[in-house]
Amino acid sequence: MKQLDKGIHAVANIQSQALHAGFKSDAAHNDLALIYFPTGATVSGVFTQNLVKAWPVIHGQASLKHHSNFKAILINSGNANACNGPDGEKTMHQAIQELADLCAIKPSEILMSSTGVIGAPLDFFPFKKALPTLVNSLQSESSQAVSESIMTTDTVAKETAYSLEIDGQTVHIGAMAKGSGMIHPNLGTMLAYIVTDIACDQVTLNQLLKNAVDVSFNSMTVDGDTSTNDTVLLCATGENSIDLTDHNLATIQSLITKVSQDLAQMIARDGEGASKFITITVGGAQSTEDAKAVAKSLATSNLLKAALFGQDPNWGRALSAIGNSGVETLDPWLIDIIFKSDIGSIQPCRNGAYHPFDPQFAQKILTATDIEMIVELNQGTSQATVWTCDLTHDYIEINADYHT
Amino acid sequence: MKQLDKGIHAVANIQSQALHAGFKSDAAHNDLALIYFPTGATVSGVFTQNLVKAWPVIHGQASLKHHSNFKAILINSGNANACNGPDGEKTMHQAIQELADLCAIKPSEILMSSTGVIGAPLDFFPFKKALPTLVNSLQSESSQAVSESIMTTDTVAKETAYSLEIDGQTVHIGAMAKGSGMIHPNLGTMLAYIVTDIACDQVTLNQLLKNAVDVSFNSMTVDGDTSTNDTVLLCATGENSIDLTDHNLATIQSLITKVSQDLAQMIARDGEGASKFITITVGGAQSTEDAKAVAKSLATSNLLKAALFGQDPNWGRALSAIGNSGVETLDPWLIDIIFKSDIGSIQPCRNGAYHPFDPQFAQKILTATDIEMIVELNQGTSQATVWTCDLTHDYIEINADYHT
Repeated sequence: MKQLDKGIHAVANIQSQALHAGFKSDAAHNDLALIYFPTGATVSGVFTQNLVKAWPVIHGQASLKHHSNFKAILINSGNANACNGPDGEKTMHQAIQELADLCAIKPSEILMSSTGVIGAPLDFFPFKKALPTLVNSLQSESSQAVSESIMTTDTVAKETAYSLEIDGQTVHIGAMAKGSGMIHPNLGTMLAYIVTDIACDQVTLNQLLKNAVDVSFNSMTVDGDTSTNDTVLLCATGENSIDLTDHNLATIQSLITKVSQDLAQMIARDGEGASKFITITVGGAQSTEDAKAVAKSLATSNLLKAALFGQDPNWGRALSAIGNSGVETLDPWLIDIIFKSDIGSIQPCRNGAYHPFDPQFAQKILTATDIEMIVELNQGTSQATVWTCDLTHDYIEINADYHT
Repeated sequence: MKQLDKGIHAVANIQSQALHAGFKSDAAHNDLALIYFPTGATVSGVFTQNLVKAWPVIHGQASLKHHSNFKAILINSGNANACNGPDGEKTMHQAIQELADLCAIKPSEILMSSTGVIGAPLDFFPFKKALPTLVNSLQSESSQAVSESIMTTDTVAKETAYSLEIDGQTVHIGAMAKGSGMIHPNLGTMLAYIVTDIACDQVTLNQLLKNAVDVSFNSMTVDGDTSTNDTVLLCATGENSIDLTDHNLATIQSLITKVSQDLAQMIARDGEGASKFITITVGGAQSTEDAKAVAKSLATSNLLKAALFGQDPNWGRALSAIGNSGVETLDPWLIDIIFKSDIGSIQPCRNGAYHPFDPQFAQKILTATDIEMIVELNQGTSQATVWTCDLTHDYIEINADYHT
């Protein structure tokens, strides 16, 4: 596997562009982006499980049920197009129709994403004004403009790409994402776009995406909140005619999983106010579900995350969070807990009780930016990994900011 | 109903005392307390649902299964007696035996609670040294020493008491509690002790306590974490021979519920770092369970709680938290949201979408310390209320504090 530095343009025959349309007040920030597949792409999608869904999510879910081939993904930031009544739906359809006319494609070949303020009216005028320029300036060189245009409270743009030889052919995969918790001023969103040049039917893509999402975007949490707009799209352009044998599919699965995990880790690392990137691995569980439940209970514990911000190896809070995971069959007296970083590791808890460690060395370990927490349940063979960040003053600062 | 100012000593024939035994390093803070019932009391208890349980919780659950009458409740702060291996169990039994010998009662007539550091060894010596003085200085005048001795990160002691005429007799009820989220340096605890002078069997007491806890301690959250030590005990001394007709029981239930809600609200108000006390009422639900699930999803949303700290009527975050409640049958397009305080009220959301309001007035409303959030689901007739506090810089400060 070879790492590439071109994001989605690691895959041939993809065009993209972004510009400032006016959804964000600051003209220096682009807020409208287009990813274009001149010869189309088979697309699979997963969306937020929040019952309250933005219009592009409702539309995308329906589109992907009825169609498998798409030519364009239109993304605006600065307005989530959520909870803004029937007008939001109307504006979305107007924008899609306008783009279809400009590109001479069908509206049913267009998917849309939005991120930004919830509950604010979304005006059609910025789309109307900006779309011709956007379409006319599409290019294949760099996805930087697009990856930056979808940022909200993100502090860095998030891209990743790889190539891999399979059966003598080179398969390419590229991806970009945005997400950093919930965004100023109202609601946040995790958006991710993964493109590859394999030829693949939608049913197979769905399975590949589901498998990848389970161990990446669904294994990452910043504040435990699920937005109204979360979307992950996997797009296969079909340029590459590699044979999808079981063996090759497994290889491609691992590629898609890898880029998904890259992006998920970038998002956790860029969590709102985060000062530390925390990897929580739970092993020795009776099932993967149990391991995940324990890891997620740890990753969403304010107490534990505030302790790690304070460089405190607070294994008591960890054990308590494990006890709150809802896994009824756990035996607390078998649990070991280890904290680890580049500097070294300590095991403050063995068999569910205090195990002697050097507190000075413990604090030193936790001064690192990347922290690992390893929980060994000693009750089975299943494991799961979840990525998160610490809970800091800056999280409060960002999210207490008055917006009305 | 008449409010009294004597805490647990509003009920006759109860003795109490507290002193500094040495579990806390600061000699100015008492850390060992005794509540004594010279003629015994029928006791009912509810305990933490955390799978990881402190020794006194394990012991208390077993004791209450086999016995209904107790004479003493021994409480230490400064050490939770949790996750410290078999030695913690041994020390607990030693302390109970020592107290039994000093009072000439049976060990099985003693219940114990602990709160403080988790995972630290608990030494018998402070008990051995302090118990004779504690027993010899029992008094019936004031519960102040006890209510203060059980405080950890609490900033105020928490007591409440009432009397009520029933069938020409005066029923008394008094209570105290501690709790403020999770405590420095390791794990926190919610402890509550309710005493009354009615004569009542344990089975009836269990039902009275369960009903009260459901709409009080189980309807309150500071940070969504459940400790290893949470305990609520309801003790009936039997001095008062009031007839427990259905009508009288209903009246007594409302008294017990009232003191439980008083204490729960005091705990939420004293939540770690809290600057605001937030009452969330969800109405129009299809069932009480649905209403509770929605209210708890709101009360545990970091995003919403950080917004309220920032005096931001962020109804989008509220709607998103409602959508994350797990109640699958909700129709988001029917939901209304109102923010309210002594200063006035605004309705920023109607039928799941933005409803015009004055942002300056909204901010003014949210400058109040006591905030109400009213969510009308418009989908049924059930309702639930949950109490919580905001998420502030001080919460991070308190919980990031390095302790090892």
